[in-house]
Amino acid sequence: MTKRKAAVLVAGSWGTALAAVLADNKFEVSLWARNEEQVEEINARHTNSRFLKDAVLPHNLTATTDIGQAVAGAEIVLFVAPSSAMRDVARLAAPHIGANALCIHATKGFESVTYKRMSTVLLEELQIAPERLVVLSGPSHAEEVVRKLPTTVVVASASVEAAEQAQDSFITPYFRVYTNKDVVGVEVAGAIKNIIALGAGLSDGLGFGDNAKAALLTRGLAEISRLGNAMGANPLTFAGLAGVGDLVVTCTSKHSRNWRAGSMLAEGIALDEVLSRMGMVVEGVRTTSAARELARLYGVEMPITEQLFAVLFQSQSPRNAVESLMGRGRTHETEDLAGI
Amino acid sequence: MTKRKAAVLVAGSWGTALAAVLADNKFEVSLWARNEEQVEEINARHTNSRFLKDAVLPHNLTATTDIGQAVAGAEIVLFVAPSSAMRDVARLAAPHIGANALCIHATKGFESVTYKRMSTVLLEELQIAPERLVVLSGPSHAEEVVRKLPTTVVVASASVEAAEQAQDSFITPYFRVYTNKDVVGVEVAGAIKNIIALGAGLSDGLGFGDNAKAALLTRGLAEISRLGNAMGANPLTFAGLAGVGDLVVTCTSKHSRNWRAGSMLAEGIALDEVLSRMGMVVEGVRTTSAARELARLYGVEMPITEQLFAVLFQSQSPRNAVESLMGRGRTHETEDLAGI
Repeated sequence: MTKRKAAVLVAGSWGTALAAVLADNKFEVSLWARNEEQVEEINARHTNSRFLKDAVLPHNLTATTDIGQAVAGAEIVLFVAPSSAMRDVARLAAPHIGANALCIHATKGFESVTYKRMSTVLLEELQIAPERLVVLSGPSHAEEVVRKLPTTVVVASASVEAAEQAQDSFITPYFRVYTNKDVVGVEVAGAIKNIIALGAGLSDGLGFGDNAKAALLTRGLAEISRLGNAMGANPLTFAGLAGVGDLVVTCTSKHSRNWRAGSMLAEGIALDEVLSRMGMVVEGVRTTSAARELARLYGVEMPITEQLFAVLFQSQSPRNAVESLMGRGRTHETEDLAGI
Repeated sequence: MTKRKAAVLVAGSWGTALAAVLADNKFEVSLWARNEEQVEEINARHTNSRFLKDAVLPHNLTATTDIGQAVAGAEIVLFVAPSSAMRDVARLAAPHIGANALCIHATKGFESVTYKRMSTVLLEELQIAPERLVVLSGPSHAEEVVRKLPTTVVVASASVEAAEQAQDSFITPYFRVYTNKDVVGVEVAGAIKNIIALGAGLSDGLGFGDNAKAALLTRGLAEISRLGNAMGANPLTFAGLAGVGDLVVTCTSKHSRNWRAGSMLAEGIALDEVLSRMGMVVEGVRTTSAARELARLYGVEMPITEQLFAVLFQSQSPRNAVESLMGRGRTHETEDLAGI
């Protein structure tokens, strides 16, 4: 029997963790990375210490700097590039992808400037039918997945068969996979939750309590659902793993970069200084701009996003932002989604 | 101008905190308690130290042991009795309630044995029209409310006017009130979240991570929504403050009795011993039985509730319960709610 092959692009923490799940599921996994030292470390020592310290990777997971070699003959091609690099990676991979390959992505975020969803970017670059594309998302710290702690995710596709193929490929006793048809909802939920994480850090940094954070999370979810609904998503998707689930993990973890950035902003540190202290990308900052732009485009009210944008880019004081949110007109909890 | 009066029954932590909000909103508030020492303390020292240490209560909030005196002439009668005492308190208050009074309750839980919702109990005992009854719920630690930290709640009623009257009575710059029409959804969400908190303690106690807890919370919410939907609720209510919001506060707080009980069960301590160590009611334990019974009655699948029941009452090991949940048949994320 010939081995089934899967390719994973690229070898960050989440890509590596998902590659390990596929390897546990008996795939021969080829992990692509640009960095030669990283590739050598993965192949020689079965570790990827920069992204997942302490984790020992399965031996049927190997790495390569050659994207053609990684992708050739793969039944599954999994894209886990940062949102800013997705188009380039897809363009490099495209010529090597087999006609029957299933393409899956697990990247959260919109493309810069165009604010396109990741599946839109992939469909444009890969020239495949939407029925061969799947998005994977959910509440999943990579560090816990490689330790085989119980984790659940959702896979969504325009095609039920494709979603089920992805489910079969990933499901293990510690990694439970649910299917969903709502690609737009799963992608919008995953992208925008970073904004709410930023807000949660801000709220905690101001000395507010659990009540305020729960309010922010819930009302944040309501405005994400409104936007998603206007973009064609099913509002119930936002109550699922890609929405509520991922929000809970993001907002309750103090390890999140977005949370830390928000809490520094609450201390009165300016955005430039916050970003320079973090020394890496804070997705929530970029996504706040994207969401605000999408809200305008689709004519959706997003008061929390609006206030965060004001704090980030218009010198609004965090405390005034909260007061402004608490003092808004009296509203009905689900009116915007009524009748759906 | 005559002062507007509100009555609050009884003077536990949540009742006292809500009484303080009404007093801040210029009501003359009469708080009913059975304990004379407690009443004297509230009137003389403006504290209720057994339930809310450190909080200083407004001077227009007074206490009495005479329920007739508390309720007479009140424009608003707020019931915050424990679910097990609600029927008795309502029966005592009924003869004194004015014809135009608005009755509100803020109690989470079902009645024992009958498994009736609190509003059903109140309608039976008070002989008022459903249009004069409101439920108040949401993510709200009482300790944070008396400190005037930002808090949001939802008020639901069969009558929009009644909900708006409740909203007007409670809304302050630190206490934001949303309206909703879905009484059943708000009550079911509030009652059942204690089960999920128990499960969260169990998951943490087993050494599982954020991924597992987020999964439990999200899938728990899905099964609560299924039950609520069968009982006539709007599934979107469960994505709101009474659902997601309250779940987040309950499951992320390690002060919750339910969480602590769950984490002791995970250590292998038997239920009797856990309850005796806690020395007080653990709502989640009772509610697990109620939810399991309601699930049967309405023909709804509730796998998490089922496994918790098995751990609590049928000697199922917590680890096997989790494995059983992870190993269930492959399912579609929103199939049970599709088409709503």
